[in-house]
Amino acid sequence: MRQASGEIFVDTTGPGLVEITATVRRWIEAQRVTTGLVSLLCRHTSASLIIQENAADAVREDIVRWLGWVAPDDAPFAHDEEGPDDMPAHIKAMLTGVTLSIPVLNGVPALGTWQGLFLVEHRHAGQRRRIALHLMGE
Amino acid sequence: MRQASGEIFVDTTGPGLVEITATVRRWIEAQRVTTGLVSLLCRHTSASLIIQENAADAVREDIVRWLGWVAPDDAPFAHDEEGPDDMPAHIKAMLTGVTLSIPVLNGVPALGTWQGLFLVEHRHAGQRRRIALHLMGE
Amino acid sequence: MRQASGEIFVDTTGPGLVEITATVRRWIEAQRVTTGLVSLLCRHTSASLIIQENAADAVREDIVRWLGWVAPDDAPFAHDEEGPDDMPAHIKAMLTGVTLSIPVLNGVPALGTWQGLFLVEHRHAGQRRRIALHLMGE
Repeated sequence: MRQASGEIFVDTTGPGLVEITATVRRWIEAQRVTTGLVSLLCRHTSASLIIQENAADAVREDIVRWLGWVAPDDAPFAHDEEGPDDMPAHIKAMLTGVTLSIPVLNGVPALGTWQGLFLVEHRHAGQRRRIALHLMGE
Repeated sequence: MRQASGEIFVDTTGPGLVEITATVRRWIEAQRVTTGLVSLLCRHTSASLIIQENAADAVREDIVRWLGWVAPDDAPFAHDEEGPDDMPAHIKAMLTGVTLSIPVLNGVPALGTWQGLFLVEHRHAGQRRRIALHLMGE
Repeated sequence: MRQASGEIFVDTTGPGLVEITATVRRWIEAQRVTTGLVSLLCRHTSASLIIQENAADAVREDIVRWLGWVAPDDAPFAHDEEGPDDMPAHIKAMLTGVTLSIPVLNGVPALGTWQGLFLVEHRHAGQRRRIALHLMGE
């Protein structure tokens, strides 16, 4: 049993899902661990990590649309000094979560056929996002 | 320190919570690990995993009802080719999450007295759902 | 590679976020593990664990306010024998989640600059909350 730590960077261009499955797979492959547990932490409070459908683009657009319905920019939030999209972004990040731990089998995350790993950007402006990675196994 | 991987199957009959606590406990017991971390991954994008109250049936019904309020079948989603319950199911799975990692103590998940592990089905039709399991400890 | 298990207690005074970052850091430090994975489980169904902005108080108040909007005390829930805030508290705990697994680097959780760990109380009355901890690494 051994472990590895790492970090990946994801550039975003405003609200939306950015698939990171291939990037995470490559990182695991480089650690030469075939069975174990991989953990991801999005190191921000206005972006998050989800496992979602990897096929239909419309699903990703609907997710962004739905998040805007439940946490709209014009909701009467007290915290607005960083812009109208800041507090909704915190809510969306909380709802969807910033951590994921996924079993690894045969050197890859044990995702289902239709599952992909995505970073979700919740701010209007593009950002460089950092994700901490940890792998334990053998 | 050692690890084990496994998989369980859960048959569902439409929207609702299916308790899997006993199944997961039995699987852990079979691995003969008394202290560690157990991780679960629901390998689907329209079903999810939660830790919730294990006593009152009404709680489970209210959860299904509430999810229907925030992500109704008649919301104006773009993605609807797989039926009106498909996109709401993706939203509900995202909200509630498909991964769980739980400390194991004395050979069982360290849940509180009123906590149980549940698979949540979000599609109208029953399905056979697959959950990947991983255990690390000694 | 080794592991450690523990528990911390958090006293709450009604709905709100209680920061536990320093408490968790001290516990990790006492285990003398510098690289690994720390996992937390809130052992209740009406309180939860989140990673959120650690600077502005208004963010925490807005989170409590927003949770009250999406799961209000006067929603027509079936389960109400434990008071009007009980079922909304279950919903809020489910939405925000009761488990977290976080990479540990240099002896501390690898959180971003603006991230803190919080227990979120969802009941009106103050409670003593229990969080199970698990650490694996070296």
